[in-house]
Amino acid sequence: MSEHLTPDSIMQLGFGFWGSKTLLSAVELGLFSELATGPLDAGEVRDRLGLHPRSARDFFDALVALDMLKRDGPLYSNTPHTDLFLDRSKPSYIGGILEMANARLYHFWGSLTEGLRTGQPQNEVKTGGNFFGVLYQDPARLKQFMHAMTGISMGAAKAMAQKFPWHKYQTIVDIGCAEGGLPVQIALAQPHLSGGGFDLPSVGPFFDEYVASFGLSDRLRFSPGDFFTDPLPQADVLVMGHILHDWNLDEKRSLLSKAYKALPPGGALIVYEAIIDDERRQNAFGLLMSLNMLIELPGGFDYTGADCSSWMREVGFRETYVEHLAGPDSMVVGTK
Amino acid sequence: MSEHLTPDSIMQLGFGFWGSKTLLSAVELGLFSELATGPLDAGEVRDRLGLHPRSARDFFDALVALDMLKRDGPLYSNTPHTDLFLDRSKPSYIGGILEMANARLYHFWGSLTEGLRTGQPQNEVKTGGNFFGVLYQDPARLKQFMHAMTGISMGAAKAMAQKFPWHKYQTIVDIGCAEGGLPVQIALAQPHLSGGGFDLPSVGPFFDEYVASFGLSDRLRFSPGDFFTDPLPQADVLVMGHILHDWNLDEKRSLLSKAYKALPPGGALIVYEAIIDDERRQNAFGLLMSLNMLIELPGGFDYTGADCSSWMREVGFRETYVEHLAGPDSMVVGTK
Repeated sequence: MSEHLTPDSIMQLGFGFWGSKTLLSAVELGLFSELATGPLDAGEVRDRLGLHPRSARDFFDALVALDMLKRDGPLYSNTPHTDLFLDRSKPSYIGGILEMANARLYHFWGSLTEGLRTGQPQNEVKTGGNFFGVLYQDPARLKQFMHAMTGISMGAAKAMAQKFPWHKYQTIVDIGCAEGGLPVQIALAQPHLSGGGFDLPSVGPFFDEYVASFGLSDRLRFSPGDFFTDPLPQADVLVMGHILHDWNLDEKRSLLSKAYKALPPGGALIVYEAIIDDERRQNAFGLLMSLNMLIELPGGFDYTGADCSSWMREVGFRETYVEHLAGPDSMVVGTK
Repeated sequence: MSEHLTPDSIMQLGFGFWGSKTLLSAVELGLFSELATGPLDAGEVRDRLGLHPRSARDFFDALVALDMLKRDGPLYSNTPHTDLFLDRSKPSYIGGILEMANARLYHFWGSLTEGLRTGQPQNEVKTGGNFFGVLYQDPARLKQFMHAMTGISMGAAKAMAQKFPWHKYQTIVDIGCAEGGLPVQIALAQPHLSGGGFDLPSVGPFFDEYVASFGLSDRLRFSPGDFFTDPLPQADVLVMGHILHDWNLDEKRSLLSKAYKALPPGGALIVYEAIIDDERRQNAFGLLMSLNMLIELPGGFDYTGADCSSWMREVGFRETYVEHLAGPDSMVVGTK
C-alpha cells in the first residue's frame, strides 16, 4: 500500500501559505481593483501597483494558476468572482477580511505553536493590548475590522435572507452588527422587515454610513450598547453572528440567556457562524476558526450545532434546529 | 451571473494559511511521530506534546478535517500517508522541508509585498546574512536544510528512478546532491548504476551518513566542490534538481554549459524541479516556487520546460524533452 502513497496532499497543505499569502498581497496591493477597470498587460499592471519587474509576472501568473485572474494573450483580467468580491469600488467587496488577515492574522498565526502550548492569545495582547480595546479605540483599525466582518458574513447573510421563514416576523435586530452587513442583506431581500443593529457606540457612524449607502436608513436603525452590561433591544428575531465564538462558555450562556429574555413568545434567535459539524470531522474552516479564537481571545472557541442547541435549551428555548447557509457557515435557530 | 457567484474559493485560498500553519505546527511538535507508535486519545497526545488543554482538541480535530489524522471513537491515529511521510523515525520522512517552511519561510513570506515592490530577498539577508553563507556555516541549520531537500525531492526521485531509460547508462552523479536523497532512490531501483553526488565540502558527512543508512556506500561516493568554480565530475548522466532555479539567467546558462562539457557524447543531463507549464497557467506550485526564489535569493527564478530546453540547445545539447515526474515536478532531459 505504501508504494502507492504520494506526499502530494501533505506538500500542498504544508505549502498552502504560499498561495494564500499571494492572494493576500494581491488584495493589499489593490490588484483586483485596478483590473476592474479593464484588462491590462503585465507592464501596465506592474506600473500601477508599483511592483519591481523581477517577479511581477510570476506573481500575476501564479494568480492565474490559482484561478484568481484570467489571462488572454498578454492581457490580465479579473475572474467573475474576483471582479465581484475583490474590487474595492463595488459594494460586494469582501476583501476587508483578507486585508485584516494580511495585516494581522498571518503574522499572529506564526506563533500558533506557542498558543497551543500556553493556551494564550498571540495577537496585540502579547505587546500589552486588548483585542477589542485596541480595535475600538482606533477608527482606522475599527473600520478595517467592520469591513472584514461584512466580508466574512456576506455569503451567510445572502443565504439567511432566503432560508429563514421571515414572513412570520416583522422586526429583526442584529446583535454585534458591525457596519450592518447582515441586516442590509436581509432588508434588501425582505421588504416587509424593519429593525437594525446593536453594537458598541463607536460603531454607530460606520453602521449609519453603510446602511445609507443602500438607501435603507428608514428601515434599519442603530442601537448603541454593550451586550454584556446593557439590555438587548427587543425584536421578533435577534441574530448573533460571529459573536458567540469570541467568548468562553459562561459568557456564551449569558448572551443566549439575554437574547431569550429580550424575545417575545414565538420570537426566534438565529446564531450563525462557521458552526462545526457534530462529529467534528468535516468543517475544517470551523475548527480552524476555533484555533483563530485561541490566537485572538482569552477564552473564545467555536462549537457544534449540537453544542449550541443544548445551550439554547438550557436557557429556555423550546425548539432548535441547525441549517446550512453557505460555505462553512450554518445557523442554529432557537424559538421561544 | 453574479447572482450565482460565491466567495468560497476566495475565502478558502485567503485563509489557506490557517490549515497550512496548523500542519506545520503539528510537524514541529512531532505529533505524527508520537502517533506512529499507535493510536492515542486526546489527553495522551496533549500530554506527550506538552499542549495546553484549551485548544488541543480543536487542533487535533482540525487535522482530522484536513485529512492528516484519523479518529476512531476517542482515539487519534495517523493516516497512511502522514504515517509514512511525517514520522521522523522512518526513512521516508519528508517533514524536513516542512520544518524549514515553519522555522523560516512562513515568517519570510509575511514580507512578500515588500519583496514584490523591491525585487529584493526577504530572508536572513535582510538582517545581514547571505542565504547559502548562513546555511553552510551552521551544521544544525545545514542538516535541517539537507533533510528538507530530501523531502522535497522524494516524489520526483522515485518517479525518475522508473521513468528515465537507465539501462542505457552506467554512472550517475547528482550535482548539488545535499544528503543524497535522489541518487539513493535511483541506486535502490537500478542496481547496475553507480556514481554519487557533488556538493560543497561541508555537505560530505551528511551524504556519507545518509547513503550508509541505505547500505549504498560502495556504489555512491561524495565528490566535494563548488559548481561555479570547480569542474563537474564526469558521469554518463548528470542530474541537477532544485539547483537551476536558485540562479539568474547567466548563472543558469553557465551551469548548463558546464554540465554539457562534463558529459561524454551520448550522455544526458536531467534537470528536474517544479518546472512551470509552457503556458504558465497550470503549475501553481512552480509559479509560487519562483516567488519563493524572490524571498530567498537575489536573482533566482523558476522557468518552463520550453525555457530550459532552449537554454540547453544554446549550450550544445542536440536533443531535449520534458516529462512529468510526480506532483508539481517534471524533468527536462538533454542529450549530448
